[in-house]
Amino acid sequence: MPVGGAEEKLPGAEILNCFVALSGGDSANVVVIPTASRLKSTGRRYRKLFRELGAGEVHVLPFETREDCTRQDWLEELERADGVFLTGGNQLRLSTTLGGTPVAAALRRLNEAGTTVAGTSAGAAFMSEHMIAFGEEGPSPRADMVTLAPGLGLLKKVILDQHFRQRDRLGRLLAALAYNPFGVGVGLDEDTAAVIDRDNLLTVVGSGAITIVDPADMSFSSMDSAKADAPVCLIGLKVHVLVAGATFNLFTRVAEPPTGL
Amino acid sequence: MPVGGAEEKLPGAEILNCFVALSGGDSANVVVIPTASRLKSTGRRYRKLFRELGAGEVHVLPFETREDCTRQDWLEELERADGVFLTGGNQLRLSTTLGGTPVAAALRRLNEAGTTVAGTSAGAAFMSEHMIAFGEEGPSPRADMVTLAPGLGLLKKVILDQHFRQRDRLGRLLAALAYNPFGVGVGLDEDTAAVIDRDNLLTVVGSGAITIVDPADMSFSSMDSAKADAPVCLIGLKVHVLVAGATFNLFTRVAEPPTGL
Repeated sequence: MPVGGAEEKLPGAEILNCFVALSGGDSANVVVIPTASRLKSTGRRYRKLFRELGAGEVHVLPFETREDCTRQDWLEELERADGVFLTGGNQLRLSTTLGGTPVAAALRRLNEAGTTVAGTSAGAAFMSEHMIAFGEEGPSPRADMVTLAPGLGLLKKVILDQHFRQRDRLGRLLAALAYNPFGVGVGLDEDTAAVIDRDNLLTVVGSGAITIVDPADMSFSSMDSAKADAPVCLIGLKVHVLVAGATFNLFTRVAEPPTGL
Repeated sequence: MPVGGAEEKLPGAEILNCFVALSGGDSANVVVIPTASRLKSTGRRYRKLFRELGAGEVHVLPFETREDCTRQDWLEELERADGVFLTGGNQLRLSTTLGGTPVAAALRRLNEAGTTVAGTSAGAAFMSEHMIAFGEEGPSPRADMVTLAPGLGLLKKVILDQHFRQRDRLGRLLAALAYNPFGVGVGLDEDTAAVIDRDNLLTVVGSGAITIVDPADMSFSSMDSAKADAPVCLIGLKVHVLVAGATFNLFTRVAEPPTGL
């Protein structure tokens, strides 16, 4: 469940509520991983929020160093989680700290076994196999405007971007997709989440939109020959802008409007 | 079988010979994919070489556009291959042309089923899940010196670099690894190949060296906080420089010298 950042935090907040419900509600054991953030208060703040929203138990596991990621007591706590929440901050702090450690392996295993894993902003970016580490703003793709890095690997054929319309990130998402048009681009607006189930069905939750870019039928790309700072020519991209209740099947690549509309 | 580029092409050339032998020698049906190259002569040149080296049959499949990658006659030819050779050129031409097409899917399926897949230079870079698209030279890692892109995905936890010592690429390989230290860096010198078998055992072939960088025990990295063009601090990397006959197990991460030394 990747979240586009800046999710509503008042009582009754839809996205955080949805995460608690998916994790089991009042019987949920929620673990918060604030590694992306440099603020000591981030973990405590989410603990308070999730308790107010009725989660059964909330634990903060503040992995700060790679050595922290081998602490047996924290790993055992993590294994008991019904839901894991990765906070925002810097996704490179997540990948450099957790990458290749028992924490990353546990998150993949838990998610595979049914534990809900959510992440907001940097926490969302980190969830896919190919993660946008950093990049530039702007609507048109340029060859050198985005830097990819290996992420956690919960989502294999998806490239995520967050704060999507708020920070004008269509260009960098298109550039990332153009490197290898094998996957689907998912641009998450703020206060908007993608709930992805076992069958690869993505459902939109929250107040903004999710922009889906599907390059499956792209017939031409100049990415391999474009100069570093020149715009890239891409022909045949399919785009969907989805709001709350709309769905997209990441496997069949079919979008459906919200039921009832 | 990734090759570091500029492999010997005289009669008896060790690396190309090894590829033909692994593909079945005089009964081998070899397919050459020259997509990375912009020279029309590249495919023909390798066809001549592989014939001289005794391959049973050699076919060139010059996929130039994404539409070419759906041609049934070429896909059927590809399905019959015992060995596939990806030439050098530009790895972004490979990923933008073949990525997400039936050709990429066929290469993964064939390799899984036992077909030898080799690539030289750009062809080698393209073979891993996380591919170095381009970058800068120099021995020290800097945060912005390398651009990764999704590759073909035959090798999951490996980042490859080629023309390794000839083009002073240690810095960019270290930068790529530092984004997420989950994998192993494999720096291939020119005229040097890594033969990787089903059990993830890598054996060095050729006249140069392969530099292995294993970040599994890295205790500190400043990648998440380093300024774009500043050097990155990395503590606890393990490095092996391996020559012909030496091995490295990509799963257990154990290096062994050539037998007899």
